[in-house]
Amino acid sequence: MSIPLLQLALDHTSLQAAQRDVALLRDHVDIVEAGTILCLTEGLNAVRALREQCPDKIIVADWKVADAGETLAQQAFNAGANWMTIICAAPLATVIKGHEVAQQHNADIQIELFGNWTLDDARAWYAAGIRQAIYHRGRDAQASGQQWGEADLSRMKALSDIGLELSITGGVTPADLPLFKEINAKAFIAGRALAGAANPAQVAADFHAQIHAIWGEK
Amino acid sequence: MSIPLLQLALDHTSLQAAQRDVALLRDHVDIVEAGTILCLTEGLNAVRALREQCPDKIIVADWKVADAGETLAQQAFNAGANWMTIICAAPLATVIKGHEVAQQHNADIQIELFGNWTLDDARAWYAAGIRQAIYHRGRDAQASGQQWGEADLSRMKALSDIGLELSITGGVTPADLPLFKEINAKAFIAGRALAGAANPAQVAADFHAQIHAIWGEK
Repeated sequence: MSIPLLQLALDHTSLQAAQRDVALLRDHVDIVEAGTILCLTEGLNAVRALREQCPDKIIVADWKVADAGETLAQQAFNAGANWMTIICAAPLATVIKGHEVAQQHNADIQIELFGNWTLDDARAWYAAGIRQAIYHRGRDAQASGQQWGEADLSRMKALSDIGLELSITGGVTPADLPLFKEINAKAFIAGRALAGAANPAQVAADFHAQIHAIWGEK
Repeated sequence: MSIPLLQLALDHTSLQAAQRDVALLRDHVDIVEAGTILCLTEGLNAVRALREQCPDKIIVADWKVADAGETLAQQAFNAGANWMTIICAAPLATVIKGHEVAQQHNADIQIELFGNWTLDDARAWYAAGIRQAIYHRGRDAQASGQQWGEADLSRMKALSDIGLELSITGGVTPADLPLFKEINAKAFIAGRALAGAANPAQVAADFHAQIHAIWGEK
Protein backbone atom coordinates (compact mmCIF):
# COMPACT_ATOMS: atom_id res chain seq x y z
CA MET A 1 0.00 0.00 0.00
CA SER A 2 1.45 3.36 -1.00
CA ILE A 3 1.23 6.33 1.32
CA PRO A 4 -2.07 8.21 1.00
CA LEU A 5 -2.08 11.55 -0.78
CA LEU A 6 -3.73 14.81 0.21
CA GLN A 7 -6.36 16.24 -2.12
CA LEU A 8 -7.68 19.80 -2.10
CA ALA A 9 -11.33 19.92 -3.17
CA LEU A 10 -12.43 23.20 -4.72
CA ASP A 11 -16.16 23.65 -4.29
CA HIS A 12 -16.23 27.35 -4.94
CA THR A 13 -18.83 29.02 -7.10
CA SER A 14 -16.19 31.24 -8.69
CA LEU A 15 -12.96 30.21 -10.40
CA GLN A 16 -11.21 33.33 -9.14
CA ALA A 17 -11.91 32.41 -5.51
CA ALA A 18 -10.85 28.82 -6.15
CA GLN A 19 -7.59 29.92 -7.72
CA ARG A 20 -6.81 32.13 -4.72
CA ASP A 21 -7.01 29.07 -2.48
CA VAL A 22 -4.96 27.03 -4.93
CA ALA A 23 -2.22 29.67 -4.82
CA LEU A 24 -2.11 29.32 -1.02
CA LEU A 25 -2.20 25.53 -0.97
CA ARG A 26 -0.74 24.05 -4.16
CA ASP A 27 2.68 23.50 -2.61
CA HIS A 28 1.07 21.68 0.32
CA VAL A 29 -1.19 19.17 -1.45
CA ASP A 30 -0.70 16.35 -3.96
CA ILE A 31 -3.99 16.54 -5.84
CA VAL A 32 -6.23 19.45 -6.85
CA GLU A 33 -9.89 18.71 -7.49
CA ALA A 34 -12.17 20.78 -9.67
CA GLY A 35 -15.31 20.13 -7.62
CA THR A 36 -18.76 19.60 -9.08
CA ILE A 37 -20.05 23.02 -8.02
CA LEU A 38 -17.06 24.78 -9.59
CA CYS A 39 -17.35 22.75 -12.80
CA LEU A 40 -21.08 23.34 -13.19
CA THR A 41 -20.52 27.05 -12.63
CA GLU A 42 -17.41 27.65 -14.71
CA GLY A 43 -17.46 24.76 -17.19
CA LEU A 44 -14.42 23.11 -18.69
CA ASN A 45 -12.50 26.32 -18.21
CA ALA A 46 -12.15 25.39 -14.52
CA VAL A 47 -10.22 22.23 -15.39
CA ARG A 48 -8.07 24.04 -17.93
CA ALA A 49 -7.24 26.88 -15.53
CA LEU A 50 -6.26 24.49 -12.72
CA ARG A 51 -4.05 22.48 -15.07
CA GLU A 52 -2.31 25.70 -16.04
CA GLN A 53 -1.97 26.85 -12.43
CA CYS A 54 -0.72 23.43 -11.23
CA PRO A 55 1.28 21.86 -14.05
CA ASP A 56 2.77 19.16 -11.79
CA LYS A 57 -0.24 18.16 -9.69
CA ILE A 58 -2.82 15.47 -10.25
CA ILE A 59 -5.99 17.25 -11.38
CA VAL A 60 -9.40 15.65 -10.74
CA ALA A 61 -12.55 16.54 -12.68
CA ASP A 62 -15.20 15.68 -10.08
CA TRP A 63 -18.01 15.44 -12.58
CA LYS A 64 -19.90 12.46 -11.10
CA VAL A 65 -20.67 11.30 -14.64
CA ALA A 66 -23.87 9.24 -14.99
CA ASP A 67 -23.99 8.79 -18.77
CA ALA A 68 -22.07 9.69 -21.93
CA GLY A 69 -18.87 8.27 -20.42
CA GLU A 70 -16.88 8.45 -23.63
CA THR A 71 -17.66 12.06 -24.55
CA LEU A 72 -17.20 13.36 -21.04
CA ALA A 73 -13.94 11.48 -20.44
CA GLN A 74 -12.58 12.93 -23.68
CA GLN A 75 -13.60 16.41 -22.56
CA ALA A 76 -12.09 16.03 -19.10
CA PHE A 77 -8.79 14.46 -20.14
CA ASN A 78 -8.28 16.74 -23.15
CA ALA A 79 -8.71 19.71 -20.80
CA GLY A 80 -5.92 18.40 -18.60
CA ALA A 81 -7.58 16.27 -15.92
CA ASN A 82 -5.76 13.14 -14.75
CA TRP A 83 -8.73 11.58 -13.02
CA MET A 84 -12.48 11.87 -13.68
CA THR A 85 -15.25 10.70 -11.35
CA ILE A 86 -18.21 8.54 -12.43
CA ILE A 87 -21.18 8.15 -10.12
CA CYS A 88 -21.84 4.62 -8.85
CA ALA A 89 -25.38 4.82 -10.24
CA ALA A 90 -24.05 5.00 -13.81
CA PRO A 91 -24.63 1.97 -16.03
CA LEU A 92 -21.62 -0.33 -16.30
CA ALA A 93 -21.45 0.59 -20.01
CA THR A 94 -20.68 4.19 -19.00
CA VAL A 95 -17.93 3.04 -16.65
CA ILE A 96 -16.41 0.84 -19.34
CA LYS A 97 -16.44 3.61 -21.95
CA GLY A 98 -14.98 6.14 -19.53
CA HIS A 99 -12.26 3.69 -18.57
CA GLU A 100 -11.36 3.02 -22.22
CA VAL A 101 -10.84 6.73 -22.83
CA ALA A 102 -8.90 7.05 -19.57
CA GLN A 103 -6.50 4.33 -20.65
CA GLN A 104 -5.84 6.16 -23.92
CA HIS A 105 -4.84 9.22 -21.87
CA ASN A 106 -2.88 7.36 -19.19
CA ALA A 107 -5.59 8.67 -16.89
CA ASP A 108 -7.91 7.15 -14.32
CA ILE A 109 -11.60 6.83 -13.55
CA GLN A 110 -12.78 7.06 -9.95
CA ILE A 111 -16.17 5.64 -8.99
CA GLU A 112 -17.99 7.99 -6.64
CA LEU A 113 -19.94 5.98 -4.07
CA PHE A 114 -23.20 7.63 -3.17
CA GLY A 115 -26.49 6.08 -2.12
CA ASN A 116 -27.25 2.52 -3.19
CA TRP A 117 -24.42 0.34 -4.41
CA THR A 118 -23.32 -3.20 -3.64
CA LEU A 119 -20.09 -5.13 -3.33
CA ASP A 120 -21.18 -6.97 -6.49
CA ASP A 121 -21.15 -3.59 -8.25
CA ALA A 122 -17.66 -3.00 -6.87
CA ARG A 123 -16.49 -6.38 -8.18
CA ALA A 124 -17.94 -5.53 -11.61
CA TRP A 125 -16.12 -2.19 -11.65
CA TYR A 126 -12.89 -3.93 -10.69
CA ALA A 127 -13.41 -6.54 -13.41
CA ALA A 128 -13.89 -3.67 -15.89
CA GLY A 129 -10.45 -2.35 -14.98
CA ILE A 130 -11.41 0.28 -12.41
CA ARG A 131 -8.95 0.62 -9.51
CA GLN A 132 -10.21 3.69 -7.65
CA ALA A 133 -13.34 4.68 -5.78
CA ILE A 134 -14.32 7.63 -3.63
CA TYR A 135 -15.94 6.91 -0.30
CA HIS A 136 -18.07 9.83 0.63
CA ARG A 137 -19.85 11.11 3.63
CA GLY A 138 -21.92 13.62 1.64
CA ARG A 139 -22.03 17.22 2.85
CA ASP A 140 -25.79 17.13 3.15
CA ALA A 141 -25.67 13.75 4.94
CA GLN A 142 -22.88 15.07 7.14
CA ALA A 143 -24.77 18.28 7.90
CA SER A 144 -27.78 16.18 8.89
CA GLY A 145 -25.62 14.44 11.49
CA GLN A 146 -24.26 11.23 9.95
CA GLN A 147 -20.86 10.33 11.48
CA TRP A 148 -18.10 7.99 10.40
CA GLY A 149 -19.02 4.67 11.94
CA GLU A 150 -18.32 0.96 11.99
CA ALA A 151 -20.63 0.46 9.00
CA ASP A 152 -18.58 2.91 6.92
CA LEU A 153 -15.30 1.36 7.98
CA SER A 154 -16.34 -2.21 7.26
CA ARG A 155 -17.65 -1.22 3.82
CA MET A 156 -14.36 0.56 3.12
CA LYS A 157 -12.44 -2.55 4.23
CA ALA A 158 -14.53 -4.74 1.93
CA LEU A 159 -13.86 -2.39 -1.01
CA SER A 160 -10.14 -2.47 -0.18
CA ASP A 161 -10.24 -6.27 -0.17
CA ILE A 162 -11.78 -6.24 -3.66
CA GLY A 163 -8.73 -4.27 -4.79
CA LEU A 164 -10.07 -0.74 -4.97
CA GLU A 165 -8.02 2.15 -3.63
CA LEU A 166 -10.21 4.64 -1.83
CA SER A 167 -10.18 8.39 -1.67
CA ILE A 168 -11.99 9.33 1.50
CA THR A 169 -13.96 12.51 1.92
CA GLY A 170 -16.68 14.27 3.87
CA GLY A 171 -15.45 16.44 6.73
CA VAL A 172 -12.25 14.43 7.24
CA THR A 173 -9.85 16.06 9.73
CA PRO A 174 -6.29 15.02 10.65
CA ALA A 175 -7.66 13.64 13.93
CA ASP A 176 -9.91 11.22 11.97
CA LEU A 177 -7.07 9.55 10.06
CA PRO A 178 -6.28 6.72 12.49
CA LEU A 179 -9.82 5.42 11.79
CA PHE A 180 -8.70 4.53 8.26
CA LYS A 181 -5.49 2.67 9.13
CA GLU A 182 -6.71 -0.67 7.73
CA ILE A 183 -8.13 0.85 4.56
CA ASN A 184 -6.40 0.92 1.17
CA ALA A 185 -6.44 4.73 1.19
CA LYS A 186 -5.36 6.47 -2.01
CA ALA A 187 -6.06 9.98 -0.79
CA PHE A 188 -7.82 12.08 1.81
CA ILE A 189 -9.91 14.81 0.34
CA ALA A 190 -10.47 18.06 2.20
CA GLY A 191 -12.17 21.22 1.04
CA ARG A 192 -13.26 23.71 3.64
CA ALA A 193 -11.16 21.93 6.31
CA LEU A 194 -8.13 23.12 4.33
CA ALA A 195 -9.13 26.20 2.39
CA GLY A 196 -11.39 27.53 5.12
CA ALA A 197 -8.78 27.23 7.88
CA ALA A 198 -7.13 30.24 9.51
CA ASN A 199 -3.78 28.76 8.47
CA PRO A 200 -4.37 26.43 5.50
CA ALA A 201 -0.71 25.42 5.11
CA GLN A 202 -0.60 24.39 8.78
CA VAL A 203 -3.68 22.17 8.39
CA ALA A 204 -2.08 20.58 5.32
CA ALA A 205 1.07 19.96 7.36
CA ASP A 206 -1.05 18.38 10.11
CA PHE A 207 -2.62 16.05 7.52
CA HIS A 208 0.80 15.06 6.14
CA ALA A 209 2.24 14.53 9.65
CA GLN A 210 -0.64 12.21 10.56
CA ILE A 211 -0.41 10.37 7.24
CA HIS A 212 3.33 9.80 7.74
CA ALA A 213 2.85 8.75 11.36
CA ILE A 214 0.23 6.15 10.36
CA TRP A 215 1.36 4.93 6.94
CA GLY A 216 5.12 5.50 7.18
CA GLU A 217 7.55 7.96 5.64
CA LYS A 218 6.99 9.17 2.12
CA MET B 1 -53.31 13.56 -16.38
CA SER B 2 -52.19 16.55 -18.43
CA ILE B 3 -50.96 16.15 -21.96
CA PRO B 4 -47.24 15.27 -22.16
CA LEU B 5 -44.81 17.97 -23.25
CA LEU B 6 -41.93 17.76 -25.71
CA GLN B 7 -38.44 18.48 -24.40
CA LEU B 8 -35.39 19.26 -26.50
CA ALA B 9 -32.21 17.94 -24.85
CA LEU B 10 -29.04 19.79 -25.77
CA ASP B 11 -26.03 17.55 -25.32
CA HIS B 12 -23.66 19.58 -27.41
CA THR B 13 -20.10 20.30 -26.39
CA SER B 14 -20.41 23.89 -27.60
CA LEU B 15 -22.99 26.48 -26.63
CA GLN B 16 -22.89 28.01 -30.10
CA ALA B 17 -23.87 24.70 -31.71
CA ALA B 18 -26.60 24.18 -29.11
CA GLN B 19 -28.03 27.62 -29.72
CA ARG B 20 -28.18 26.99 -33.47
CA ASP B 21 -30.41 23.97 -32.80
CA VAL B 22 -32.49 25.96 -30.34
CA ALA B 23 -33.10 28.63 -32.98
CA LEU B 24 -34.44 25.92 -35.31
CA LEU B 25 -36.58 24.18 -32.72
CA ARG B 26 -37.66 26.55 -29.99
CA ASP B 27 -41.05 27.23 -31.56
CA HIS B 28 -41.69 23.49 -31.84
CA VAL B 29 -40.90 22.29 -28.30
CA ASP B 30 -42.21 23.05 -24.81
CA ILE B 31 -39.05 22.53 -22.75
CA VAL B 32 -35.38 23.22 -23.48
CA GLU B 33 -32.82 21.21 -21.53
CA ALA B 34 -29.26 22.30 -20.86
CA GLY B 35 -27.79 18.79 -20.91
CA THR B 36 -25.05 17.56 -18.62
CA ILE B 37 -22.37 17.59 -21.32
CA LEU B 38 -23.22 21.15 -22.31
CA CYS B 39 -23.29 22.31 -18.67
CA LEU B 40 -19.97 20.69 -17.77
CA THR B 41 -18.42 22.25 -20.86
CA GLU B 42 -19.88 25.74 -20.74
CA GLY B 43 -20.81 26.15 -17.08
CA LEU B 44 -23.69 28.22 -15.77
CA ASN B 45 -23.44 30.40 -18.83
CA ALA B 46 -25.26 27.68 -20.77
CA VAL B 47 -28.34 28.01 -18.55
CA ARG B 48 -28.24 31.81 -18.68
CA ALA B 49 -27.89 31.86 -22.47
CA LEU B 50 -30.81 29.46 -22.99
CA ARG B 51 -33.01 31.45 -20.63
CA GLU B 52 -32.22 34.54 -22.69
CA GLN B 53 -32.82 32.76 -25.99
CA CYS B 54 -36.08 31.16 -24.79
CA PRO B 55 -37.74 33.55 -22.36
CA ASP B 56 -41.08 31.69 -22.44
CA LYS B 57 -39.94 28.07 -22.33
CA ILE B 58 -39.36 25.76 -19.39
CA ILE B 59 -35.58 25.50 -18.99
CA VAL B 60 -34.06 22.39 -17.37
CA ALA B 61 -30.59 22.29 -15.82
CA ASP B 62 -29.77 18.60 -16.23
CA TRP B 63 -27.06 18.57 -13.61
CA LYS B 64 -27.75 15.15 -12.03
CA VAL B 65 -26.86 16.64 -8.65
CA ALA B 66 -25.48 14.14 -6.11
CA ASP B 67 -24.60 16.46 -3.24
CA ALA B 68 -24.70 20.14 -2.27
CA GLY B 69 -28.37 20.33 -3.18
CA GLU B 70 -28.92 23.77 -1.71
CA THR B 71 -25.97 25.54 -3.36
CA LEU B 72 -26.54 23.95 -6.74
CA ALA B 73 -30.29 24.61 -6.73
CA GLN B 74 -29.61 28.25 -5.93
CA GLN B 75 -27.12 28.43 -8.80
CA ALA B 76 -29.46 26.76 -11.27
CA PHE B 77 -32.61 28.68 -10.42
CA ASN B 78 -30.85 32.04 -10.10
CA ALA B 79 -29.44 31.47 -13.59
CA GLY B 80 -32.97 31.01 -14.95
CA ALA B 81 -33.66 27.28 -14.82
CA ASN B 82 -37.19 26.15 -13.96
CA TRP B 83 -36.30 22.55 -13.22
CA MET B 84 -33.07 20.97 -11.95
CA THR B 85 -32.26 17.26 -11.94
CA ILE B 86 -30.95 15.33 -8.91
CA ILE B 87 -29.53 11.85 -9.38
CA CYS B 88 -31.39 9.05 -7.63
CA ALA B 89 -28.18 8.04 -5.84
CA ALA B 90 -28.12 11.35 -3.96
CA PRO B 91 -28.80 11.21 -0.21
CA LEU B 92 -32.37 12.14 0.71
CA ALA B 93 -30.94 15.18 2.52
CA THR B 94 -29.74 16.51 -0.85
CA VAL B 95 -33.17 15.97 -2.38
CA ILE B 96 -34.86 17.75 0.52
CA LYS B 97 -32.52 20.74 0.38
CA GLY B 98 -32.82 21.04 -3.38
CA HIS B 99 -36.61 20.86 -3.09
CA GLU B 100 -36.68 23.61 -0.43
CA VAL B 101 -34.76 25.96 -2.72
CA ALA B 102 -36.97 24.97 -5.67
CA GLN B 103 -40.08 25.92 -3.71
CA GLN B 104 -38.63 29.35 -2.98
CA HIS B 105 -38.18 29.85 -6.73
CA ASN B 106 -41.51 28.34 -7.79
CA ALA B 107 -39.32 25.76 -9.49
CA ASP B 108 -39.13 21.98 -9.52
CA ILE B 109 -36.68 19.17 -8.81
CA GLN B 110 -36.64 16.12 -11.06
CA ILE B 111 -35.12 12.88 -9.79
CA GLU B 112 -33.04 11.24 -12.49
CA LEU B 113 -33.42 7.47 -12.29
CA PHE B 114 -30.19 5.68 -13.12
CA GLY B 115 -28.85 2.37 -11.85
CA ASN B 116 -30.03 1.11 -8.48
CA TRP B 117 -33.13 2.63 -6.95
CA THR B 118 -36.22 1.19 -5.34
CA LEU B 119 -39.90 1.98 -5.11
CA ASP B 120 -39.26 2.73 -1.41
CA ASP B 121 -36.84 5.44 -2.56
CA ALA B 122 -39.56 6.76 -4.85
CA ARG B 123 -42.05 6.85 -1.97
CA ALA B 124 -39.48 8.73 0.14
CA TRP B 125 -38.95 11.29 -2.63
CA TYR B 126 -42.71 11.74 -2.97
CA ALA B 127 -43.06 12.16 0.80
CA ALA B 128 -40.33 14.84 0.62
CA GLY B 129 -42.47 16.78 -1.86
CA ILE B 130 -40.94 15.62 -5.13
CA ARG B 131 -43.44 15.20 -7.98
CA GLN B 132 -41.21 14.55 -10.99
CA ALA B 133 -38.75 11.88 -12.06
CA ILE B 134 -36.88 11.12 -15.27
CA TYR B 135 -36.98 7.59 -16.57
CA HIS B 136 -33.91 7.00 -18.60
CA ARG B 137 -32.63 4.47 -21.01
CA GLY B 138 -29.04 5.73 -20.85
CA ARG B 139 -27.22 6.44 -24.11
CA ASP B 140 -24.46 4.00 -23.22
CA ALA B 141 -26.98 1.38 -22.12
CA GLN B 142 -29.00 2.06 -25.28
CA ALA B 143 -25.90 1.83 -27.47
CA SER B 144 -25.09 -1.51 -25.86
CA GLY B 145 -28.46 -2.82 -27.02
CA GLN B 146 -30.94 -2.36 -24.14
CA GLN B 147 -34.48 -1.85 -25.46
CA TRP B 148 -37.67 -0.53 -23.88
CA GLY B 149 -39.30 -3.59 -22.39
CA GLU B 150 -41.99 -4.83 -20.04
CA ALA B 151 -39.67 -4.34 -17.06
CA ASP B 152 -39.26 -0.64 -17.93
CA LEU B 153 -42.97 -0.17 -18.48
CA SER B 154 -44.03 -1.84 -15.24
CA ARG B 155 -41.49 0.21 -13.26
CA MET B 156 -42.81 3.37 -14.92
CA LYS B 157 -46.36 2.36 -14.06
CA ALA B 158 -45.40 1.74 -10.42
CA LEU B 159 -43.75 5.19 -10.26
CA SER B 160 -46.89 6.74 -11.79
CA ASP B 161 -49.01 5.01 -9.15
CA ILE B 162 -46.84 6.53 -6.39
CA GLY B 163 -47.74 9.93 -7.83
CA LEU B 164 -44.62 10.83 -9.77
CA GLU B 165 -44.87 12.37 -13.21
CA LEU B 166 -42.27 10.94 -15.55
CA SER B 167 -40.17 12.50 -18.24
CA ILE B 168 -39.12 9.69 -20.54
CA THR B 169 -35.88 9.65 -22.45
CA GLY B 170 -33.30 7.55 -24.23
CA GLY B 171 -33.79 7.25 -27.97
CA VAL B 172 -37.56 7.85 -27.82
CA THR B 173 -39.16 8.24 -31.26
CA PRO B 174 -42.74 9.20 -32.15
CA ALA B 175 -43.40 5.55 -33.02
CA ASP B 176 -42.54 4.52 -29.43
CA LEU B 177 -45.12 6.74 -27.76
CA PRO B 178 -48.06 4.28 -27.66
CA LEU B 179 -45.90 2.16 -25.32
CA PHE B 180 -46.29 4.85 -22.67
CA LYS B 181 -50.06 5.26 -22.84
CA GLU B 182 -50.66 4.06 -19.27
CA ILE B 183 -47.81 6.09 -17.80
CA ASN B 184 -48.16 9.45 -16.06
CA ALA B 185 -45.95 11.08 -18.68
CA LYS B 186 -44.89 14.67 -18.04
CA ALA B 187 -42.66 14.97 -21.08
CA PHE B 188 -40.83 13.09 -23.77
CA ILE B 189 -37.22 14.10 -24.10
CA ALA B 190 -35.42 13.92 -27.41
CA GLY B 191 -31.98 15.12 -28.36
CA ARG B 192 -30.41 13.81 -31.52
CA ALA B 193 -33.78 12.39 -32.66
CA LEU B 194 -34.89 16.02 -32.97
CA ALA B 195 -31.81 18.15 -33.52
CA GLY B 196 -30.05 15.55 -35.65
CA ALA B 197 -32.99 15.03 -38.00
CA ALA B 198 -32.98 16.18 -41.62
CA ASN B 199 -36.13 18.16 -40.83
CA PRO B 200 -36.18 18.87 -37.08
CA ALA B 201 -39.46 20.79 -37.13
CA GLN B 202 -41.17 17.89 -38.92
CA VAL B 203 -39.98 15.40 -36.28
CA ALA B 204 -41.26 17.74 -33.56
CA ALA B 205 -44.61 17.89 -35.38
CA ASP B 206 -44.66 14.07 -35.54
CA PHE B 207 -44.11 13.91 -31.76
CA HIS B 208 -46.91 16.41 -31.12
CA ALA B 209 -49.27 14.60 -33.49
CA GLN B 210 -48.67 11.29 -31.72
CA ILE B 211 -48.99 12.90 -28.28
CA HIS B 212 -52.32 14.46 -29.27
CA ALA B 213 -53.56 11.23 -30.83
CA ILE B 214 -52.81 9.28 -27.66
CA TRP B 215 -53.44 11.74 -24.83
CA GLY B 216 -56.06 14.00 -26.41
CA GLU B 217 -56.17 17.52 -27.75
CA LYS B 218 -54.05 20.19 -26.11
